[in-house]
Amino acid sequence: MLHNPASKYRPFAPVRLADRRWPDAVITQAPIWCSVDLRDGNQALIEPMDIARKMRMFEQLVKIGFKEIEVGFPSASQVEFDFVRKLIEEDRIPDDVTIQVLTQAREPLIRRTFEALAGAPRAIVHLYNATAPVMRRVVLGMSEDEIVELAVSHAQMFQDLAARQPATDWTFEYSPEMYSDTELAFSKRVIDAVTAVWQPTPEKKCIINLPTTVEHSTPNIFADMVEWTHRHIARRDSVVLSVHPHNDRGTGTATAELALMAGADRLEGCLFGNGERTGNLDVVNVALNMYTQGVHPGLDFSDIDAIRSTVEYCNQLPVHPRHPYVGDLVYTSFSGSHQDAIKKAFAERKEGDIWDMPYLPIDPKDLGRSYEAVIRVNSQSGKGGIAYLLESEYGLQLPRRLQIEFSAAVQREMDASGKELTAADLWALFQSEYQIQAVAAPAYRMQDDGGRMQLAATVQWQGDILDLEGEGTGPIDAFVQALSTALDRQLRVLDYTEHAIGEGANAQAVAYVEMRIDERQTVYGVGMDANIVSASMRAILSGLQRAPQMQVVAA
Amino acid sequence: MLHNPASKYRPFAPVRLADRRWPDAVITQAPIWCSVDLRDGNQALIEPMDIARKMRMFEQLVKIGFKEIEVGFPSASQVEFDFVRKLIEEDRIPDDVTIQVLTQAREPLIRRTFEALAGAPRAIVHLYNATAPVMRRVVLGMSEDEIVELAVSHAQMFQDLAARQPATDWTFEYSPEMYSDTELAFSKRVIDAVTAVWQPTPEKKCIINLPTTVEHSTPNIFADMVEWTHRHIARRDSVVLSVHPHNDRGTGTATAELALMAGADRLEGCLFGNGERTGNLDVVNVALNMYTQGVHPGLDFSDIDAIRSTVEYCNQLPVHPRHPYVGDLVYTSFSGSHQDAIKKAFAERKEGDIWDMPYLPIDPKDLGRSYEAVIRVNSQSGKGGIAYLLESEYGLQLPRRLQIEFSAAVQREMDASGKELTAADLWALFQSEYQIQAVAAPAYRMQDDGGRMQLAATVQWQGDILDLEGEGTGPIDAFVQALSTALDRQLRVLDYTEHAIGEGANAQAVAYVEMRIDERQTVYGVGMDANIVSASMRAILSGLQRAPQMQVVAA
Repeated sequence: MLHNPASKYRPFAPVRLADRRWPDAVITQAPIWCSVDLRDGNQALIEPMDIARKMRMFEQLVKIGFKEIEVGFPSASQVEFDFVRKLIEEDRIPDDVTIQVLTQAREPLIRRTFEALAGAPRAIVHLYNATAPVMRRVVLGMSEDEIVELAVSHAQMFQDLAARQPATDWTFEYSPEMYSDTELAFSKRVIDAVTAVWQPTPEKKCIINLPTTVEHSTPNIFADMVEWTHRHIARRDSVVLSVHPHNDRGTGTATAELALMAGADRLEGCLFGNGERTGNLDVVNVALNMYTQGVHPGLDFSDIDAIRSTVEYCNQLPVHPRHPYVGDLVYTSFSGSHQDAIKKAFAERKEGDIWDMPYLPIDPKDLGRSYEAVIRVNSQSGKGGIAYLLESEYGLQLPRRLQIEFSAAVQREMDASGKELTAADLWALFQSEYQIQAVAAPAYRMQDDGGRMQLAATVQWQGDILDLEGEGTGPIDAFVQALSTALDRQLRVLDYTEHAIGEGANAQAVAYVEMRIDERQTVYGVGMDANIVSASMRAILSGLQRAPQMQVVAA
Repeated sequence: MLHNPASKYRPFAPVRLADRRWPDAVITQAPIWCSVDLRDGNQALIEPMDIARKMRMFEQLVKIGFKEIEVGFPSASQVEFDFVRKLIEEDRIPDDVTIQVLTQAREPLIRRTFEALAGAPRAIVHLYNATAPVMRRVVLGMSEDEIVELAVSHAQMFQDLAARQPATDWTFEYSPEMYSDTELAFSKRVIDAVTAVWQPTPEKKCIINLPTTVEHSTPNIFADMVEWTHRHIARRDSVVLSVHPHNDRGTGTATAELALMAGADRLEGCLFGNGERTGNLDVVNVALNMYTQGVHPGLDFSDIDAIRSTVEYCNQLPVHPRHPYVGDLVYTSFSGSHQDAIKKAFAERKEGDIWDMPYLPIDPKDLGRSYEAVIRVNSQSGKGGIAYLLESEYGLQLPRRLQIEFSAAVQREMDASGKELTAADLWALFQSEYQIQAVAAPAYRMQDDGGRMQLAATVQWQGDILDLEGEGTGPIDAFVQALSTALDRQLRVLDYTEHAIGEGANAQAVAYVEMRIDERQTVYGVGMDANIVSASMRAILSGLQRAPQMQVVAA
């Protein structure tokens, strides 16, 4: 059994922001995006990226449209340092992209960091130090005053070192480490002390980044914290307020969205949520959530599978089949009622319409995906999926009642096998159920005598050859009358549809005939033939063949 | 490029609940949990569960502690029907567990559903019909009045059929399909019409379930909707208010939590978030989020890996390595600064303390997991991880400055190989770096003459045999003096620690000696020996051996 948690875990203290405004806010524009795939993401990999993988990731991030990319922690290892040098020395950074690097508040690391950036046209240098109580007490053994002094003195070092490399356009970023776990007033004190050193202006802002280093609370509490900070820090008009959510509680996406509503301007995260432990914020998820709300995220995921492929190559970790927007199964519908609804909505939808599609929150085509590609039929699937597959793969436009009739056959087959059926399986089952090949085309002569059709036909029936004669309003009517007489049954056509499959010399007609037999049973027949009359006759014979009593009678 | 979404997608209309209360609410008790793994989860599988898998899942769910389990959609297929019959006929349902089944509002399906439940001691029968505008218009072609009539007439059918099976203790559940996409006032109208038929009482409640069939909005909007419904529906005291979130926007967990704050009493979801498309609500995630806030969820995940194994077997889908609480990587720390902090906090923590651990929101032991089991060392790892691994796997308690010194060697090795190092790799590197095997134990005689130690020793040094004599306060002091004289160097011990590894006859001592050599260089030596004096001497020789100049001098 799990322990009683009340004696071991401490609930997160709510902020109780009395006049909070964020619950009425709506996200109407994209934030500034910063990818941390090459830093926070990379450091959490079982196998960190080599230089080739780093370069491929960097180029992918540029292609998506990130303008700020944290490329490493250059003082942490030679590989990290070398990659930053390579980007700068080989002139790999596009003019509209700024690289960002992280450093702890320690002098040798900061010196090494500025060394790594020598010659960069632009750079964001990102300073962090611990501020949370557990870190102050257990890890650093420092008082609040000492923490402020630590931040201030290293912020000053940034100023001094940057002044020695004036050819670079510098932006400074500061993160109080574990902001999410730090007293709000103390975070403000440290942040204000740092901006007092940096003296940002509305024209030359600095970035203040608020990490949920570990996600501890429901996202509304983090939103209250961000709104408090947004409303209380000094020099707000000279600060880009950034958040850096993690996902320990599985609510990173919501945390980011509510933080934007609460006043944040900028998001740090990774593609598909890679990162320490449960991962960083999934920037793709947040960006596409905006997209479905009519807000362009300014990032391009129109070939999301290619991006996934790059990410899986670089990270050597899979993307889950149910991952929002990109997983293999997220545009799949298995449920019959869902499939029916989607089919109807697709049929009604006109190009240019607002997207109003049941069970599909985004048009898969916008991401280079398709609904069709992944629809499958299993023992939970209904007629919608079956009809859709037979139409998209084989061109059949099954009448609605025939769909219902055929779905029972599919159900039996799937209950028996317990396996999913492919489109080819369904097509084979359809041909077998409606005896498409088994029923031969009759030979016939027809004559229209002033509105009445005279028909003579030769039919193979249950191993015999029957010569029929009949009369009617058209060939179907005449053929049914002829068959009724020859077999001594009451046959009546309830519904008839026919359509072409394919074009030109290879075109085939497919006829669907719903028949009432002896006023006792109703059955569909299906016939295919290059000749529309033959297709109809074969459909009628198919229906007769399928009605069990008829076979006995005809014997 | 992505299209401009403004012309294709419609933003979700905010509720703007002026006097909302949920942002100040805190979750202080567990909801009623209902697993839908065997219904919503199962219908979304590539390969739906066979009877054996269903039974294994059912037994797992019972073991975890679910008291309400949706076991299928018995009118949808024979397999579903048979499984419900098997549970009832083989008396598989524990006395404190109620099975639940789903049916659409269609007479033959409802009749078949009650047939499936014949002889059940207790059952929840769950009715749904479409209420959302897109479903009314496109799928059903029904007016609002017709939808209400559809719900009411089938709710009445529930009453009638249940009355014919009076031996069963019935609970009714109703879901307005796509509640999340239905006008609040219309949802209320349908819900009130259904409860007017069922006439629930505070003693015999019915369940009203609000599905985010497709997740369309930020979770705060859903919370506003739930709070509105909670405050406006009739017969609220006779209703168990349930929510059934999906995860299309990646915010299912937050949606559930905010809905509980807004007035919901009950959650429907699946283990690890299986389900249509991006999945159902992950009930494990929400339950363990509560657990870390000091609230017992009433579900037992104390062997979470065993549960994962069952789920992966039944669903034939993997759980992602970063999945909250259960993924392979979620208790892993790769970052050196994180590892340091965790190491310090573990060292300070006493049994019974409140859990206040940086970077670990839950004690992995509570779930049968461990922090140690998955820590890895790669080019982003620092000394904390290295020290932790060498301690947990090999019993070494490295002094802090030795950790720093050794981490440089690890860094070089990893930068060169680009691969992660296992604990065994680290141990091999440590032995090689400190020449643990290469340095032989000296032969020696010692005599303590009234507080001064007299030492004579024979040492193998650079291929020679040296006979040494020295005097000091103890054996280390005497040995260092003897060596200084013999080699004509200034040697000084800065720090010394020694500890045992193992117990009894197999116990070894390991000595760490930090030495200053010629006042120019500082170096650690490490020695291991069953004899504590020999271990110290070997440590001093190890340090000397590692100092490059010394080797030249000694040659």
